Amino acid sequence: MKQLTVDLGERSYPIYIGEGIISGLAATLANHKIGTKSPILVVTDENVAKFYLAQVKDSLEAGGYRVATAVVAPGEKSKSLAVLEDMITVALEAGLDRSSAVIAIGGGVVGDLAGFVAASYMRGIRFVQIPTTILAHDSSVGGKVAVNHRLAKNVIGAFHQPEFVLYDTATLKTLPEREIRAGLSELVKEGFIWDREFVEWFDANTDKLLALDSEALAHALYIGCGVKATVVSQDEREGGLRAILNLGHTIGHALEAVSGYDELLHGEAIAIGMVGAAMLSEKLGNPGSIAVETERILRKLGLPVRIPSHLDTDAIMSALMHDKKFKEGTMVFIIPTAIGEVEINSNVSSVWVREIVERLKGEA
Amino acid sequence: MKQLTVDLGERSYPIYIGEGIISGLAATLANHKIGTKSPILVVTDENVAKFYLAQVKDSLEAGGYRVATAVVAPGEKSKSLAVLEDMITVALEAGLDRSSAVIAIGGGVVGDLAGFVAASYMRGIRFVQIPTTILAHDSSVGGKVAVNHRLAKNVIGAFHQPEFVLYDTATLKTLPEREIRAGLSELVKEGFIWDREFVEWFDANTDKLLALDSEALAHALYIGCGVKATVVSQDEREGGLRAILNLGHTIGHALEAVSGYDELLHGEAIAIGMVGAAMLSEKLGNPGSIAVETERILRKLGLPVRIPSHLDTDAIMSALMHDKKFKEGTMVFIIPTAIGEVEINSNVSSVWVREIVERLKGEA
Ligand SMILES: NC(=O)c1ccc[n+]([C@@H]2O[C@H](COP(=O)([O-])OP(=O)(O)OC[C@H]3O[C@@H](n4cnc5c(N)ncnc54)[C@H](O)[C@@H]3O)[C@@H](O)[C@H]2O)c1
Ligand SMILES: NC(=O)c1ccc[n+]([C@@H]2O[C@H](COP(=O)([O-])OP(=O)(O)OC[C@H]3O[C@@H](n4cnc5c(N)ncnc54)[C@H](O)[C@@H]3O)[C@@H](O)[C@H]2O)c1
Ligand SMILES: [Zn+2]
Ligand SMILES: [Zn+2]
Repeated sequence: MKQLTVDLGERSYPIYIGEGIISGLAATLANHKIGTKSPILVVTDENVAKFYLAQVKDSLEAGGYRVATAVVAPGEKSKSLAVLEDMITVALEAGLDRSSAVIAIGGGVVGDLAGFVAASYMRGIRFVQIPTTILAHDSSVGGKVAVNHRLAKNVIGAFHQPEFVLYDTATLKTLPEREIRAGLSELVKEGFIWDREFVEWFDANTDKLLALDSEALAHALYIGCGVKATVVSQDEREGGLRAILNLGHTIGHALEAVSGYDELLHGEAIAIGMVGAAMLSEKLGNPGSIAVETERILRKLGLPVRIPSHLDTDAIMSALMHDKKFKEGTMVFIIPTAIGEVEINSNVSSVWVREIVERLKGEA
Repeated sequence: MKQLTVDLGERSYPIYIGEGIISGLAATLANHKIGTKSPILVVTDENVAKFYLAQVKDSLEAGGYRVATAVVAPGEKSKSLAVLEDMITVALEAGLDRSSAVIAIGGGVVGDLAGFVAASYMRGIRFVQIPTTILAHDSSVGGKVAVNHRLAKNVIGAFHQPEFVLYDTATLKTLPEREIRAGLSELVKEGFIWDREFVEWFDANTDKLLALDSEALAHALYIGCGVKATVVSQDEREGGLRAILNLGHTIGHALEAVSGYDELLHGEAIAIGMVGAAMLSEKLGNPGSIAVETERILRKLGLPVRIPSHLDTDAIMSALMHDKKFKEGTMVFIIPTAIGEVEINSNVSSVWVREIVERLKGEA
């Protein structure tokens, strides 16, 4: 088992990564002083429940825990205040108190929702993240939790750090292939922003990763979580540095919004966005090789690198203008200045952005 | 103008108390670095809006602020996730961003609701409290914000401290008389738990307070907020000490629940509860004079000191058992050990509690 720490003073916590470690959950809870006196709430979604809920519940009960469970529908729609209210109902009916904990088992949807339940139930109880997607290496570390509003994603939430993150690579075996590729997109992003060596290793190990080789996966998640942890511990509440984690996300979010959140997976949208950011980098005077290299690596992972041609350029531009990172005429972008390095550039002309959007809609 | 500070390290903030000071709101915002660049959201209820909203909005706009307003229905029902969602809609449509602030103008309902909007909008933006009830001296200080769930009050919320509290005693002139008495109940409670001298002053100045004499009111709110601020700064997240603020609340909450939240005002319910706690004190061996004195002072304020006889004892006991402060057979109560002093006693037998509930249902 690998272990690393998210360093946040008295809110510091460990990330455990390994194959099969979910079987030790009850013991890990006890190590973290989550006792058996108060009931705990396990939140998951239908897909994940099918594979792992019975096993987790049994092992927790064998460890003496009283376990309430809440299984939500899979997908972004479950990140809503209505579902949050349902979770609070379950928590109240099960008698959760201030010493209870909420355990999220699932991808980012479950983690974000359950995290906000934990953050707001009785003004905050403890929380544990058990990510079961590759993408959730990102969402499970850093304490950002939220639900969506019909007008905007992730706009109702909190910063609420977990007690620990337990990443069992064995649970990834049941992921649909498209989710695997999309998760790897966010994972290689950690390399693009921070760690050239990791990008090179990724490039050399693409096949193993796509085949979910346990050792390769554990290594990649260890490095990816490490980058996230380092950035978060330097900027817990997103004052500045943490923005670099959003490489590819400005265009990515616009594409998700315009395509109605059901055509592109998040990891696919940001793959296109990362290529766009690299193309903007060239506009800003950096070497064109960055975009070429970025595109090659993402293609190798089987990810889309062009905007679906039926998406309207004006609609994309207008979605971009609504992005929080937009300020007066010029736009703020995370720009790669080399493979493994980025800068926050607040001087990107929206004329260039339109040009790149058009180019991304061209032939692949 | 009087001023005091809630001492919470980097989250410290001032409470301003004075007559007419609401007219200086724009300047006070500016002093607190809440600038005019991002829009602000003013939340209030229909009763308060009628008297003060136009004036506040005009003066803010004169100060260069872009102001969005949200006026909710008066009363506890507005503390719901549904109303929270509406507030977020207003905030999004008005373009509030991470540099924006939410300003609550009203009683505890508005403060608790608006505070949770501020706590959760984009994971937390700044917040200002402008209490307009006497009871809100309590709710506006300390950062506890929340909405209700159909099964329990204040169960979905956060700790989110305001940037400052601005208490304009002039706004209290429009309060209905019953609200005045109920507010004074919570205010004299600060004396009962912490400050014998304040209770004596209160006793000597009851008439002035009931007549809303500006100087007396400013003094009483200053002392009352001061007690609350002192307790909160020693126990921000309600680990222990903060519980003493709940003198009278164990029985009070049960009465509110059993009477359906529309018969007794919170301040009325806790007046009865404070008499009950004082009677329990006698059971525990403390002088009977505490109960006599407590009852005399509350009667003088025109507050109820007996349980309405139609409320069912079993129902009250069952509501008490569901209270968070209840543990296995004995109950936790805040018990006055003298006027101006309390202890947290976790050894109060539920048999005694039933006996006191019965006695409180007797002739007044
Ligand atoms: N909080 C943060 O910092 C942060 C960061 C990035 C993304 N997010 C959020 O994360 C969410 C996306 O996360 P995601 O990509 O993990 O999506 P997801 O949670 O929707 O999971 C993707 C799909 O895989 C299924 N699934 C999950 N684990 C499985 C398993 N082991 N076996 C089989 N199926 C499985 C799910 O049911 C779902 O259908 C978005 O809501 C996004 O906003 C949050
Ligand atoms: N957060 C905390 O620490 C805390 C502490 C105590 C109470 N509370 C909460 O506070 C709430 C009760 O607060 P409240 O007693 O202020 O109730 P409230 O906000 O409902 O106000 C009482 C009534 O007075 C009206 N009103 C308010 N100001 C007025 C004015 N200046 N002129 C005329 N009418 C006015 C309101 O419209 C309402 O009808 C409860 O929800 C309780 O849970 C919170
Ligand atoms: Zn992402
Ligand atoms: Zn109270």
